[in-house]
Amino acid sequence: MNREQIISQIKLKRSFLCIGLDTDINKIPKHLLSAEDPVFEFNKQIIDATNDLCVAYKPNIAFYESMGLSGWNSLQKTLDYIPKDILTIADAKRGDIGNTSKMYARAFFENMNFDSVTIAPYMGLDSVSPFLEFKNKWAILLALTSNKSSSDFQKIEAKNGEKLFEKVIKTSKNWGSEKNMMYVIGATRSKQLSEVRKIIPHHFLLVPGIGIQGGNLEDVAKYGMNKDCGLLVNSSRGVIYSGDGFNFAEASRKAAKQLQNKMDILLSERGI
Amino acid sequence: MNREQIISQIKLKRSFLCIGLDTDINKIPKHLLSAEDPVFEFNKQIIDATNDLCVAYKPNIAFYESMGLSGWNSLQKTLDYIPKDILTIADAKRGDIGNTSKMYARAFFENMNFDSVTIAPYMGLDSVSPFLEFKNKWAILLALTSNKSSSDFQKIEAKNGEKLFEKVIKTSKNWGSEKNMMYVIGATRSKQLSEVRKIIPHHFLLVPGIGIQGGNLEDVAKYGMNKDCGLLVNSSRGVIYSGDGFNFAEASRKAAKQLQNKMDILLSERGI
Repeated sequence: MNREQIISQIKLKRSFLCIGLDTDINKIPKHLLSAEDPVFEFNKQIIDATNDLCVAYKPNIAFYESMGLSGWNSLQKTLDYIPKDILTIADAKRGDIGNTSKMYARAFFENMNFDSVTIAPYMGLDSVSPFLEFKNKWAILLALTSNKSSSDFQKIEAKNGEKLFEKVIKTSKNWGSEKNMMYVIGATRSKQLSEVRKIIPHHFLLVPGIGIQGGNLEDVAKYGMNKDCGLLVNSSRGVIYSGDGFNFAEASRKAAKQLQNKMDILLSERGI
Repeated sequence: MNREQIISQIKLKRSFLCIGLDTDINKIPKHLLSAEDPVFEFNKQIIDATNDLCVAYKPNIAFYESMGLSGWNSLQKTLDYIPKDILTIADAKRGDIGNTSKMYARAFFENMNFDSVTIAPYMGLDSVSPFLEFKNKWAILLALTSNKSSSDFQKIEAKNGEKLFEKVIKTSKNWGSEKNMMYVIGATRSKQLSEVRKIIPHHFLLVPGIGIQGGNLEDVAKYGMNKDCGLLVNSSRGVIYSGDGFNFAEASRKAAKQLQNKMDILLSERGI
């Protein structure tokens, strides 16, 4: 999926919502456990209930990997079930030396046919470049993450006062372009989005951390939105676990709809 | 596997060799392709030929992941086949926010029963701590990797002159202890091992990059060995692809034996 298609979907759906499929078999409604593939059945119902409200789905690979072969199977079925006009993000945070990153790129872009994958930048250019060689695929680099410990290293200041996450963005932004790279910037750090926008005004940002983790949607739009929107704001637990029992999918639709309504207003305010 | 068991195996086998199972179906001998599971068949013969010469096997997870379900299946069979007195390292370079890292820890320590897993530290403490909660399991943090681009970020200097990889080691060394944490330090950076040893004299170091990548075993021992050895030196391609055709396993044994002979001498020189 290319940049123009993503922007077009945002305008069409009046939404820049990404729904995180952090599907945990211990958290899904009990009545699904008798299904042949409970994890896929849960995802299927979430996708059916929300696909007109979001522009991206982001399966969190750890949740599937933790279940072994059956988890990978549920993931593939989920990926195949997502409508083709919706961006798919493998939240995998991979990254290794060149010949190994090439294998990860194949795993997610060829074997599984994801549109994009999240990448940890610690190992530098040759760990990222293999992900940039696929047409209409995206490398999404971790810059400033939403977790409490993100400050341990990401905010270390270099001699020139530059923080590590800024250095990561400045160094990497020309490895690819705004047509095949995005960055993860946590919503819990929303004020720093304006700093980020000075470095990369045009790139899309994947913004986790609204909802459970405490980030605020209005702030994210205020500091991070550009003329093409340029944002994919993720909610995982806040949407998929908003209800329990037989009406869980309906409850997740309601949670997604609330976010999409706010997003519609935020887009309109900026003439998008 | 605990620290004492690792040290005991090193002394017994006169070796601190780790063999990297970066098994690529496009590189294994052609006659294996007719086997039911060519990747496992290759690994099995490599393990049969080398298990008395090494103290660790390190499957590179990307190579299995790139093959989808059949790859994960080959990985599990390989893991089950490795003798129990040999340390198993999932070279996975995982790391994510707390609740997600917990899932990765479960994937590798519970679902697959690896002894250890490599972790990218960029996201800080809460991305690592879930891996430290399992008894006799190991978190192996990337500090200074062996690839060319490792300098992009790992050597950034903070205001006090400290490099990022040093900061990573200093900050993280007390998250766990030398009984459940190791660090990756590339052999291509062997002189920096003495700097590392000033910060963490006792921890085990996993050292990739000898052989194909250009690192030197004698230098690694000179700058990195401590009284318990404290090193696991990895060779992947240099061992497993040292031969082709029907005698590939014999050739890999020969390559491993050459390394083990050198290691025997290096251990003896230090009275280990």
